[in-house]
Amino acid sequence: MTVSGLSESGLLDRIFPRLALGSRHGAATLLGPGDDAAIVAAPDGRTVISIDTQVQDQDFRLEWPNGYRTTGFDVGWKAAAQNLSDINAMGATATSMVVSLTLPPDTPVSWVEDLADGLTAGIRNLGAQDCSVAGGDLGRGREISVSVAVLGTLSGGTAVLRSGARPGDVLALAGTVGRAAAGLALLESATGPDTLTPEQRNLMTLQCRPLPPLAAGPLARTGGATAMLDISDGLLRDGTRLARASNVILDFDPQELVRLAAGLEPASTLLKTDPMRWVLAGGEDHGLLATFPPGIQVPAGFTAIGSVQAPGHNESPGIKIAGQAADTGGWDHFAH
Amino acid sequence: MTVSGLSESGLLDRIFPRLALGSRHGAATLLGPGDDAAIVAAPDGRTVISIDTQVQDQDFRLEWPNGYRTTGFDVGWKAAAQNLSDINAMGATATSMVVSLTLPPDTPVSWVEDLADGLTAGIRNLGAQDCSVAGGDLGRGREISVSVAVLGTLSGGTAVLRSGARPGDVLALAGTVGRAAAGLALLESATGPDTLTPEQRNLMTLQCRPLPPLAAGPLARTGGATAMLDISDGLLRDGTRLARASNVILDFDPQELVRLAAGLEPASTLLKTDPMRWVLAGGEDHGLLATFPPGIQVPAGFTAIGSVQAPGHNESPGIKIAGQAADTGGWDHFAH
Repeated sequence: MTVSGLSESGLLDRIFPRLALGSRHGAATLLGPGDDAAIVAAPDGRTVISIDTQVQDQDFRLEWPNGYRTTGFDVGWKAAAQNLSDINAMGATATSMVVSLTLPPDTPVSWVEDLADGLTAGIRNLGAQDCSVAGGDLGRGREISVSVAVLGTLSGGTAVLRSGARPGDVLALAGTVGRAAAGLALLESATGPDTLTPEQRNLMTLQCRPLPPLAAGPLARTGGATAMLDISDGLLRDGTRLARASNVILDFDPQELVRLAAGLEPASTLLKTDPMRWVLAGGEDHGLLATFPPGIQVPAGFTAIGSVQAPGHNESPGIKIAGQAADTGGWDHFAH
Repeated sequence: MTVSGLSESGLLDRIFPRLALGSRHGAATLLGPGDDAAIVAAPDGRTVISIDTQVQDQDFRLEWPNGYRTTGFDVGWKAAAQNLSDINAMGATATSMVVSLTLPPDTPVSWVEDLADGLTAGIRNLGAQDCSVAGGDLGRGREISVSVAVLGTLSGGTAVLRSGARPGDVLALAGTVGRAAAGLALLESATGPDTLTPEQRNLMTLQCRPLPPLAAGPLARTGGATAMLDISDGLLRDGTRLARASNVILDFDPQELVRLAAGLEPASTLLKTDPMRWVLAGGEDHGLLATFPPGIQVPAGFTAIGSVQAPGHNESPGIKIAGQAADTGGWDHFAH
């Protein structure tokens, strides 16, 4: 059965039972789905908010070159992960989501049910334990589109912005980089999923169902992070954003980059690719890049991967690797 | 120039200056665009939230049968109006919006700038004087899609839900019904916009740029409304939702319905149509249907249009017109 065979309320009746997350998850939702709007608790008098959309054939393919078919579960999980990561990157914890689904009439109802399951599983398994789905909206279109707005709380604390890094700070990473990009390369290759090793399949799964480190954001905030952002567009691109917002140089330790590349070896060997490109330019793992004052221990989940420096005379803020400007080929892996 | 000629940040640089609403509007936005998420004040410890999406060829046509071309300004205004109306229908006032835009590569940049202008004009001219655009997201797709999530505050008060109407209450309407539907019929007719009278053109404009009565929602809340909702799908359909949620009968006064139909006469005469269909089934004016306890004066902006009754023995909650079930042809205009 496709969604064209159901009324809007008929389809909602299929979705809502799958969004049940348990009482703890609903604690912040004072009024859930069913009225003109929802009401969500904002206990410290502020709410953190972000919105993000995934569109078919732009952010995911229903069928990939290697034959893998994106499930509704994948899309629901990824929608949860991407949005929860934006809240995480402020040092906040998510309190609720509202979801707007645009569906072509020929979308199977089972695919939409699967999306609801994936959204629920993402919230639960990524550890967003106070978050629930407070409401949403259904409509039709020519392509599948999933917009999620997510709310979060800073629990009385101060948000960690991109602009607070200071010379002398330690540069640190939580989560991974490059794995979703390696997975994307596998999905776009001619190698069918059935012939992949478990390690290779795991990278592919991380493209479809990323694992943002949700405990790390609030820990960074309480642990004194001076700046932080979500690495959704790659270490160099997002790092440059943080560097510019803070007017600093981020200097990456090449040994740490090599260590990060090692985890991508199952894909890079198969595809005969340099994994460092995925480390530096691959997004969608939704790791966190953060800076911490010198002399304090970086919180659990973070690894020091470099340092923060003041730009030299006539030097623009940006990225260096081992002291050499990354955009001038100083780090030869980037010149590819 | 089309959006394919600009980077994401280049396009954002075109949009942001057009979202400036003045200092009063930004009061609730503690952190605006530019970081992973925005931060919005929620002074009473709660936030009202809703999300809504408009999709090209579903919610609007870029070119209508009568030759009118939907402007970016129209789409921006309507996105603002629809979402502000959901907050209004809770008795709340809007504090901020986040906007996710999906654009085909061939969308003219000027069309997107126009959309930002329309969004800003909608917020300002509809009277959402505390609301600003706190953030957003840009992406590509095959069709234009605009998702808006809107936040609001109840200022310490109690939300007006759909479920609180009681037998004996007065049924009242703020704003209009049927005008956007009459405008839609004009847009779908063969009569070119240039040949329309000012009154007819005004109805057409109300389809493209609706005028939800934003002062009325909070006034209904402070004025003791027992139930309220936004009429987005028509008086009968939305009225039935309120009736079912409250387990009551809503009995409309036919003289009031005739009065509402009179305003549609410029279109109904031209199109040789019964205007009562637009009154009863036309959505998108985003008027408010509310119920008030007997014996109190309905707030400014509301007009009494009927009464609330208890369902009789073995009778389901729903709509009546002059005491006759609306879905059994009791009101002959509905049987068409």
